[in-house]
Order: sequence, then structure tokens, then C-alpha cells
Amino acid sequence: MKHVRNVLIVGGVHGNELNGIYLVKTLEQQPALLERSHLTATTLLANSDAIHQNRRYVEMDLNRCFDRDDLTNPDLHLHEQQLAKQIYRQVQAQPIDFVVDLHTTTANMGLTLILSSDHPLNVAIAAHLSILSPLVKILLLSPQSATRRLRGLCPLGFTLEAGAIAQGTLDANLFFASRRLIGETLDYWNCWNQGNMPSLPSEATVYEHVQTLDFPRDADGNVIAMVHPDRHGQDYGAIAPGDPLFMGFDGSVIPYDGQDVLYPIFIQESAYWEKGIAMYLTRKKQMPISVMDA
Amino acid sequence: MKHVRNVLIVGGVHGNELNGIYLVKTLEQQPALLERSHLTATTLLANSDAIHQNRRYVEMDLNRCFDRDDLTNPDLHLHEQQLAKQIYRQVQAQPIDFVVDLHTTTANMGLTLILSSDHPLNVAIAAHLSILSPLVKILLLSPQSATRRLRGLCPLGFTLEAGAIAQGTLDANLFFASRRLIGETLDYWNCWNQGNMPSLPSEATVYEHVQTLDFPRDADGNVIAMVHPDRHGQDYGAIAPGDPLFMGFDGSVIPYDGQDVLYPIFIQESAYWEKGIAMYLTRKKQMPISVMDA
Repeated sequence: MKHVRNVLIVGGVHGNELNGIYLVKTLEQQPALLERSHLTATTLLANSDAIHQNRRYVEMDLNRCFDRDDLTNPDLHLHEQQLAKQIYRQVQAQPIDFVVDLHTTTANMGLTLILSSDHPLNVAIAAHLSILSPLVKILLLSPQSATRRLRGLCPLGFTLEAGAIAQGTLDANLFFASRRLIGETLDYWNCWNQGNMPSLPSEATVYEHVQTLDFPRDADGNVIAMVHPDRHGQDYGAIAPGDPLFMGFDGSVIPYDGQDVLYPIFIQESAYWEKGIAMYLTRKKQMPISVMDA
Repeated sequence: MKHVRNVLIVGGVHGNELNGIYLVKTLEQQPALLERSHLTATTLLANSDAIHQNRRYVEMDLNRCFDRDDLTNPDLHLHEQQLAKQIYRQVQAQPIDFVVDLHTTTANMGLTLILSSDHPLNVAIAAHLSILSPLVKILLLSPQSATRRLRGLCPLGFTLEAGAIAQGTLDANLFFASRRLIGETLDYWNCWNQGNMPSLPSEATVYEHVQTLDFPRDADGNVIAMVHPDRHGQDYGAIAPGDPLFMGFDGSVIPYDGQDVLYPIFIQESAYWEKGIAMYLTRKKQMPISVMDA
């Protein structure tokens, strides 16, 4: 059985996502919150310059800098590219068994766990956490997406996306819900290391990325419609063929023209405007929990 | 009687407040929305570089650059200082009678009208607009605050603060509510210019700035508490002495220690983080409407 002895909790990969930053600071000031008998939890504030500037990043998105080829490419010198290399060296020197990367989103995502991989141990702990709080949702993005992100440094772990929270603001309810989730994560692995497992259901509800939707645009690339009010803030709500999806600036309704019932998430995530993303569409599915295969 | 012949509608003073930017673009693409028999309405996208970068500003906050001394100071060369001078020259060359400056806020402010001054004509049109929509609130900041802001270019007019909207996102409901409000504003002045006034109540409910509150900080200036969950999103809700105001990262409650019942607004406005502002406190009062004195 694999032990999970070293847990790394990261905040400030994006410098304007304050909840995670202040949560890491709080954990550093109240180390008793991290202490467990059978594991060691450490913390990291990833991008202090961006935090100081209250900006997502200084030169480029740090959470797109962790591709292995980029980490070993001596020609990449942007602030965040160097920072990623430094974090990578640190993780190589002090290997970690599980990583939690704390983010916020302006989308109404509650406490979304984006798993580093669909490893059975990841699915099991996420299922456990989702039973403890109705805010918790489990999200699977493509394996490729993890390779560029910090969570890709460790096959076990997740990115926590807490929202809706405006950039540069704090949300007390989600702060304490996130603090509780971290405590439960440490408790889980601490029991696991001692051979005690909480009873788990036979399967977990997960949302799997299917499609990334841009805003409707004209021939010159200008945005010509907004998210429809029926979708606004309705992350994880089902959308069926023909349902309203976007609304033009003239009030015209643009329906969803897909074939399947899907579940939009990251609806109106502010940082995705520059990436040309209006939302993700996901499929809801049941995934068997089989920690014995781990 | 003063006529209001020239109305200027401005968006993009802050480049990441998209609702106003796309509203101005829409008005420019659908000029019929601006056409009235007895007035001329023009539009301006104020800070195209900041809009292009999807940032509040390039070098400094444009909406703090309109102090008359600064506008005539040849030594001020920052991007936004030059932009303010250019806008000022434009307004001098083509005088305006009424200005509407479109902003968004991450605070839950509905459609807040920050009046350029407490001129009876401003109070009257704001009262009229507040009767047409329950979203509309009337806010009076100090006369000094207007001198540095774009709305200070014209004694008649208001800043429209629409929220809650995350920076870099669009909100369709507030977009169409704002578009309606602009139409009603033009209708009002168009009738006024013809000697027709809608019937108005004898007084209007206004909120007057009393105090600006920073977050609680330690001796080194570090933020040590968040807005209390009871206040989160409760702009224009009364706060009484002893009510919860902030919450420490350890869960401790910091009550409101003032003497009077006041009304917090701009609670958790994201852009005010760098200015050291957690919220404003306002006093709710009734203001007589007396357009005959105008």
C-alpha cells in the first residue's frame, strides 16, 4: 500500500486569488492546523511578486509553465517560467506524495476538486470529501491539462477551485469551508497511513471535460454575445439541446446546439476572458471507487 | 430654465469593467437607441489601451486624474494623465450638459447612481430613475471626490456603478437594466427640454458617504480579517452598533463599533483592495426634490 507521508499545500499560484493566499498564511501562522501523527504537511506561496502586485501573474500564467519540456528548457526566462523551474527543483529535492493547489474562480463552482489524475486514490479521497460537504464537486480535465499545471507535479492531488469569488477579494464562508476541507484531507491520509479507511460508497459522481466554449464572435473576432441570464451562476446545472446559452447585445437568444445533456462549469471565469473561454461543458458520470486497485 | 442638449455617455474609464464598454459599443452600433428629438447624445470609450489589456488602467487610475490642477499641469505625463487632459480638451471644445459614466463593481450595488453633485436637477432625475427600477440607489460622495473623477467634468450627471459583476466579465441582466436606464435618462431630458416633466415625489432616498473603512490590520499593515459573512453582498443593508462587521482568519468576530445605524456599500469592491478600502459607510436620508429651484 502506498503511503501519503508528505502533503504540499500551495497558495498564490495566481497572485489575485486571495482566499488561497490567506489560507496558506493562516496555516503557516497556526501550524497546529497542519499537524498530524502520521504525515507531514508543508505550505508554499508560489508567486510572491504577483501576490504583491495583486495580479494573476507578472509575465505569464504560472499555471501553464509546468510542462516537463519547458521545465528543462534553458531558454525560457520569463518570471513565471523561472519560478516554475524553482518549484520543480524544490519538489524534486523534497518529493511530495499529495499536492493541494488553492485557487479561486469568479464562476459559481463551490468547492471544485480538479483531480491531478483519475488515479483510484484521487477519486476515493475526492468522493470522501464530497460526502462531507455538498459544496464539493469532482472535476476531471484531460490528462494533458495537468502537464502544464502545478498539480501535474504529483500524480496524487487536486486543484481546489473555490467560487464564486471576485479576484482581489476574500470570501469568509468559502475560506472556512476550504480550511475545513484541507483538515479533512490531512485527516484522511493520516488514517490511510495507519491502515484505517473511512467507509466509501461504491461510486462517485464526477464531471468530465467534454468541450471548451468561446463566446460567439463576429468575423473580426469581436465578442457579440454574453452568457444568457438563465446560465449565469448556474455552474453544474444541466443544459439540454435548445436551452438558452448566450444572449446577444441586442437581446437575441443563442441556444445550445449540442446533441447531449451536458453540465457547464467555469461559466464567466474572469481569467478565461483573455483565453477566449466562456465556459467548459462537462459530462456527469458515475465512476467506480476501487481503492484496493491502488 | 436650463436645457440639457448634449449628453455624453462614457464607458471604459476602467478597462476591465466590461458591461459599460460593451454598452457603449452597442449604442455606437445601434445609434437609434440614442436618438431623441430635443437632444444629442454622444459616446466615448475612454481608455482604449486599458480596454485592450483588459486591465483597470495602464499606469494609474484614470478616474483619479481629473483634478483641475492636474489637467493643467504640463509635468504630468503618465498614460492616464495624458488621456484625462485629452478628454478634458474634448469636453471644453464640445461642452456637455450631462454626463453618464458607466462602471461596474464587484460589490452588490445593483444600479447605483453616484451623483456628480447634489444639484437639484441631479437629485430629481435620480429620483425619477429610482422610481422606475428597484435596482436603482442614489449615492452622494463628498464634493471633493468628484473633482478627481470624470463625472466632475460636468456638474450634472452621474457615475453608474452596476454590480455585483466580476472584473473582466459581462452580466446580461445588468447590461439590459443599464441600457434601459440610459434610455430613460435620455427620455427624461428630452421631455425636460420640451417643458414636460414627469410627476416626482416630494423627496428622494439618498445614501451619503460618512466614513471609509479599511480592513483590520496588524502593526505591519497585514490584513488580519475578512468581511463578516453577514455583511458579504449586503450592500445598502443597515448595520447597527455591535453587529458583526469583520471576521478574523481564526474565526473571531469583530463587531461594528460605531455609534449610529449606517449603511455599508462598496463591500469588497475588488479595485479598492489596493486602496486599503474594505467598504464605505453611508447615512440614509431623505432629500427634498425641488426642481423649481434649478
